[in-house]
Amino acid sequence: MAQFPDELLNGYRNFMNGRYVEESDRYQSLAKEGQKPKAMVVACCDSRAAPETIFDCGPGELFVVRNVANLVPPYEPDGNYHSTSAALEFAVQGLKIRDIVVMGHGRCGGISAALAPSSEPLSPGDFIGKWMGMLDGPAEQIRSAGILTAAERQRALERVSVRNSLQNLRTFPCVKILEDAGKMRLHGAWFDISTGELWIMDSASGDFIRPKF
Amino acid sequence: MAQFPDELLNGYRNFMNGRYVEESDRYQSLAKEGQKPKAMVVACCDSRAAPETIFDCGPGELFVVRNVANLVPPYEPDGNYHSTSAALEFAVQGLKIRDIVVMGHGRCGGISAALAPSSEPLSPGDFIGKWMGMLDGPAEQIRSAGILTAAERQRALERVSVRNSLQNLRTFPCVKILEDAGKMRLHGAWFDISTGELWIMDSASGDFIRPKF
Amino acid sequence: MAQFPDELLNGYRNFMNGRYVEESDRYQSLAKEGQKPKAMVVACCDSRAAPETIFDCGPGELFVVRNVANLVPPYEPDGNYHSTSAALEFAVQGLKIRDIVVMGHGRCGGISAALAPSSEPLSPGDFIGKWMGMLDGPAEQIRSAGILTAAERQRALERVSVRNSLQNLRTFPCVKILEDAGKMRLHGAWFDISTGELWIMDSASGDFIRPKF
Amino acid sequence: MAQFPDELLNGYRNFMNGRYVEESDRYQSLAKEGQKPKAMVVACCDSRAAPETIFDCGPGELFVVRNVANLVPPYEPDGNYHSTSAALEFAVQGLKIRDIVVMGHGRCGGISAALAPSSEPLSPGDFIGKWMGMLDGPAEQIRSAGILTAAERQRALERVSVRNSLQNLRTFPCVKILEDAGKMRLHGAWFDISTGELWIMDSASGDFIRPKF
Repeated sequence: MAQFPDELLNGYRNFMNGRYVEESDRYQSLAKEGQKPKAMVVACCDSRAAPETIFDCGPGELFVVRNVANLVPPYEPDGNYHSTSAALEFAVQGLKIRDIVVMGHGRCGGISAALAPSSEPLSPGDFIGKWMGMLDGPAEQIRSAGILTAAERQRALERVSVRNSLQNLRTFPCVKILEDAGKMRLHGAWFDISTGELWIMDSASGDFIRPKF
Repeated sequence: MAQFPDELLNGYRNFMNGRYVEESDRYQSLAKEGQKPKAMVVACCDSRAAPETIFDCGPGELFVVRNVANLVPPYEPDGNYHSTSAALEFAVQGLKIRDIVVMGHGRCGGISAALAPSSEPLSPGDFIGKWMGMLDGPAEQIRSAGILTAAERQRALERVSVRNSLQNLRTFPCVKILEDAGKMRLHGAWFDISTGELWIMDSASGDFIRPKF
Repeated sequence: MAQFPDELLNGYRNFMNGRYVEESDRYQSLAKEGQKPKAMVVACCDSRAAPETIFDCGPGELFVVRNVANLVPPYEPDGNYHSTSAALEFAVQGLKIRDIVVMGHGRCGGISAALAPSSEPLSPGDFIGKWMGMLDGPAEQIRSAGILTAAERQRALERVSVRNSLQNLRTFPCVKILEDAGKMRLHGAWFDISTGELWIMDSASGDFIRPKF
Repeated sequence: MAQFPDELLNGYRNFMNGRYVEESDRYQSLAKEGQKPKAMVVACCDSRAAPETIFDCGPGELFVVRNVANLVPPYEPDGNYHSTSAALEFAVQGLKIRDIVVMGHGRCGGISAALAPSSEPLSPGDFIGKWMGMLDGPAEQIRSAGILTAAERQRALERVSVRNSLQNLRTFPCVKILEDAGKMRLHGAWFDISTGELWIMDSASGDFIRPKF
């Protein structure tokens, strides 16, 4: 039988003896009154890009979706399971969250895969290939710019992908209506794993710039 | 144009002036050498149940999928986008992760929705309704147990759902093969938001128990 | 008759009363013994990107070519005037300089022009159009990546252009021979006018990274 | 792989810790609003004659072309690359600069080469020989004046060359038209590396005189 990983149990003990002690009131209040997160973040599964760490957020502050390459698929009201769309609906309609951040990051494995479509799929089901297929058009454009280095193509698509997800967010009627009414704000961000830099997307131009403090 | 939320920017500044200072070498090394997370965690989007917080994990330690109610759908090798399956493929085949934790939690909004299927959908697309439809069978069973309190039914389905996701994980050939070969371990856990208690699933019985330290 | 600009005369007076006083010995020695600059820099004419300022260099330290967009044309041993090739020959063969830096910069007007080739030429002679024509191939590739923002395309071509010039440098037999023999080093750099950041090109990958101090 | 020269990196650090700190607002404003340099200077690549140093100019003040011996070729609207003509077009038509300074200097290596045409070319391509060929007529005249010392011939051709470039500037229609209309001013100057003296060309006579303060 599988033994729960010791490292995780040790980590949990640290949590209980440390952070939870200080924040037990907050946890109890959050349990009683429900969550009221200040923002929804669509982030990547990557172990180096946890939103709570990067934004130094405590319990109750961020509603977080994490999938490979922090993608938001377009609105597709069919009968299938839509993980990200369900989270979006819950955040916007259920929790009334009005700030949504799509946060990409450097060295994203999903983006790498999108840029190397002809490589062998990781498994016969090729779920990564299909999932990243959402970026087929943009990836093709970036691949054609062979004059860019591999790293430059990677970073370019990481940022294009954030803009693409923001556009897909706007295909959801509730998002579109709320944003047009000035009641919802969509944000793009990109985190540099190596340097810790956070780049914020300028919503007018789509460019990513480093915020000044 | 949308202004990036001040609270997040302030949080990021705390991160850069605090944690990042201590861990910059680690971030740089993780960027250079790639991530080698010790486990994959399938967790809920809920703002009160961030795995990195609960397991006190630093950068590079956990590969994290977060969707509503921490569900893993069954293996469906069709042409659709499968967010969670893509993440699983990346974790198992790409990163060679061998411990997967499905972590549920108390007061889960998705589970509440599954237990109240006839309520008004949150939006016309009813993405939550469809997503939680993955639990239709178990939810129907729990609802029929009218003798349980609402809170008991909720907690029951939260735990049933973890077991259900673990079973779905085993429908993926790579998981099944590796687990049967003794090379992969699947784990269940449930976090009590109010008390901070972590309950671990006994893999033989499927019961949830509190670990002793 | 044209009066020499007062601002320049005032600036020169500042120089004579300030820097020259401190460095008169150095100037006299440089006049007597000739220049032995440590590096050649190919930079842009842009008033915001003077190499001596950015590298804090004094008299005698940098041999500097400045043309629009800091381009190096390929080796063309014909009968025409070749401003940049002449400077290169003088630096390498005459002064025995062994480090050559091609330094691009942000918001480069020449690069902007290369990305907008169909716009009206600045004059009937269209010298900018012809000069930037050296980048026609790369510019076409970058323009095709319409998914990038205008600023992203601009920065991409600014960096591609540095790599292009470095490649053109290697078409000069003397550069090729010396570099192959390990006696010459070619470097790329890119200066961000707005933030003052200097990005250095990694010679292996061609990527631009910020140096650590 | 080539390591970026330490001396330049150290210089850049001095810049960032020194001058940039004081002028960061100016750099940011120049990036945002574009450059509006007060003059264009055609100067030599020589490491001892940087215009920004001699005129004590800060970022954004001088648009600078630097080639061997600060030459301006005549107007040649053919299909070739014309580095200096492109810069001139950009300065006059793009930036609307109305003061152009051609600045020669003492001990100029290019002028020396022009005065010793029968010496061995620096390389088989003989780019210096061809570039300085622009001065063939004047150089021949000066060489014939065998009564002058070598240093006198050198200084004479350095100044003749400035006048020659000013005449070539006037072969560009835009320069001619603007100057005739009183909207553009052309200036000559000559810098003595050894003593720091700046000599200004009297535009009526073509003589070089030391300005009085």
